[in-house]
Amino acid sequence: MAVAAENQSQPPQNDLPYVLILKPPTAFSIFGDHFFHSPKFQFLKPFESPLPLPQFLLTHAQSVQAILTSASGSVTADTIRLLPRLGLVVTTSQGINHIDLSECRRRGIAVAGAGTIFSTDCADSAVGLLLDVLRKVSAANRYVKQGLWSTQGNYPLGYKLGGKQVGIVGLGSIGTEVAKRLEAFRCSISYNSRSKKPSVPYTFYPNVVELAVNCDALIICCALTDETHHLIGKEVLSALGKDGVINNIARGPIIDEKELVQCLIKREIRGAGLDVFEHEPDVPVELLALDNVVMSPHNAVCTTESLEELRKTVVGRSLLLK
Amino acid sequence: MAVAAENQSQPPQNDLPYVLILKPPTAFSIFGDHFFHSPKFQFLKPFESPLPLPQFLLTHAQSVQAILTSASGSVTADTIRLLPRLGLVVTTSQGINHIDLSECRRRGIAVAGAGTIFSTDCADSAVGLLLDVLRKVSAANRYVKQGLWSTQGNYPLGYKLGGKQVGIVGLGSIGTEVAKRLEAFRCSISYNSRSKKPSVPYTFYPNVVELAVNCDALIICCALTDETHHLIGKEVLSALGKDGVINNIARGPIIDEKELVQCLIKREIRGAGLDVFEHEPDVPVELLALDNVVMSPHNAVCTTESLEELRKTVVGRSLLLK
Repeated sequence: MAVAAENQSQPPQNDLPYVLILKPPTAFSIFGDHFFHSPKFQFLKPFESPLPLPQFLLTHAQSVQAILTSASGSVTADTIRLLPRLGLVVTTSQGINHIDLSECRRRGIAVAGAGTIFSTDCADSAVGLLLDVLRKVSAANRYVKQGLWSTQGNYPLGYKLGGKQVGIVGLGSIGTEVAKRLEAFRCSISYNSRSKKPSVPYTFYPNVVELAVNCDALIICCALTDETHHLIGKEVLSALGKDGVINNIARGPIIDEKELVQCLIKREIRGAGLDVFEHEPDVPVELLALDNVVMSPHNAVCTTESLEELRKTVVGRSLLLK
Repeated sequence: MAVAAENQSQPPQNDLPYVLILKPPTAFSIFGDHFFHSPKFQFLKPFESPLPLPQFLLTHAQSVQAILTSASGSVTADTIRLLPRLGLVVTTSQGINHIDLSECRRRGIAVAGAGTIFSTDCADSAVGLLLDVLRKVSAANRYVKQGLWSTQGNYPLGYKLGGKQVGIVGLGSIGTEVAKRLEAFRCSISYNSRSKKPSVPYTFYPNVVELAVNCDALIICCALTDETHHLIGKEVLSALGKDGVINNIARGPIIDEKELVQCLIKREIRGAGLDVFEHEPDVPVELLALDNVVMSPHNAVCTTESLEELRKTVVGRSLLLK
């Protein structure tokens, strides 16, 4: 059985370039293996092999010309060093911090993310989560579905989105899309970013604590880097204050999750909308029972429609293999 | 005890104008009786009296100069006829179809609704519900909170809002606010209304079936009238089709609820976001278990902030009593 499985994972005997799939992207579990299928390249799938990954990589070291991965599949220097013919790493995520970029640079390996395909979906999710937390959509839905409306009366009112001061941390492609949407809701937008952007009309705060002091809601849209790791800690959350709401659709470790959990339990902030977590897919158990916390399973980035767009992009990029 | 209670409901002996509260508005249950308090008028509260309503009204017939009511407290011709000094009916709702307008007209009684105080909250809710249904926010939140993400993997992807054709039924103050918001999400807007509005750039369909045929989502924003009662029935829902979504933040009876329930159960449409129902606070039991249905307890209209604005308006209007 093990031998048969290993045989299946052997590359077919033809001359098509080999693309190693380090970790199956979400699309595979939804649409099956053929989602990224192309007659111009073929996949190597270590996750279908009984061999441990290092051994699998050694076996196929001379074949792999590209890697396809997703946000949760790290591409380490160790992996890269095993693959002398590697020329391209494609990730289905917008973020690329799970790829060892210095090693790629050193070796001249091209790295391609999903670019801005997901920016609009991500921005939609950010607004959806913000509306949900403020207006208690999920919590009220649960209340109605439990049959409590007719027996226990009205559900507590939520809070207005219009007129709120919203601070965006990271005004890149996603942050900008979030800002555009929130302007239509008559929110006032301000932002924190590495530098002031001369072309935008929003208030710039060089310091995220100062941004939080001046905002009713913070939306985290920046990339995860050494500088942004635990950027949002106790000090920022305290500055946001008890009527403040925080949303994270970027990466979990940008927020110090332990501090956030404590603030939410003690109601030191009003609520949170979280698509990402420090130890996904595990989420802090303390959050499970909190009505002022709305969570999604790291899917802000993606819809059925954007995934189809991604498919075209990945197939297109992989076609560039020599 | 009954006597004591009746004594409590006797109007205080002073010359302030009397405002009859037919049914306590939501604000009363949230903020207490003093929410609409003013030194310029006083309230009569039949719901605190042991007397049946008609008898209570007869007792105080000569005192009542105004009625304060809410969406669920009908002001019938019978009630109005019992009150010869009635000069003003104020409702905390935007809709005024629960007030007998012909009787008010005949008697020259002024009728005041909440105007556009709630339009933006209502529009925010409409967008929130649409995002929730398409992107599965509440359902995914439930999935994460049940601890299923780490044990059962990714939650099924939702659908993109951007690029969707959204049809607005009733382009009044709420419908217009909904349209403005959805433009920021890059939706294409069309509408059905009693007549074409020359000043708006959206496509007009004189027939709601035709609108549904050409839309991915319908948002019901019109007033409930004899003409709009069950306006949305089997024909419109079939025209919307299996990828279509419907949202109702207007009034329950505009949709034929039995037909809607059947369409949702049979997945003849993709999903629904419902703030209002035909027999509130009862909701069809068939909807309770459906993940593609998001419900809120008729609170789209209202937030803590808008209620405060309402308070100022009601107090202000009641001050006009002679």
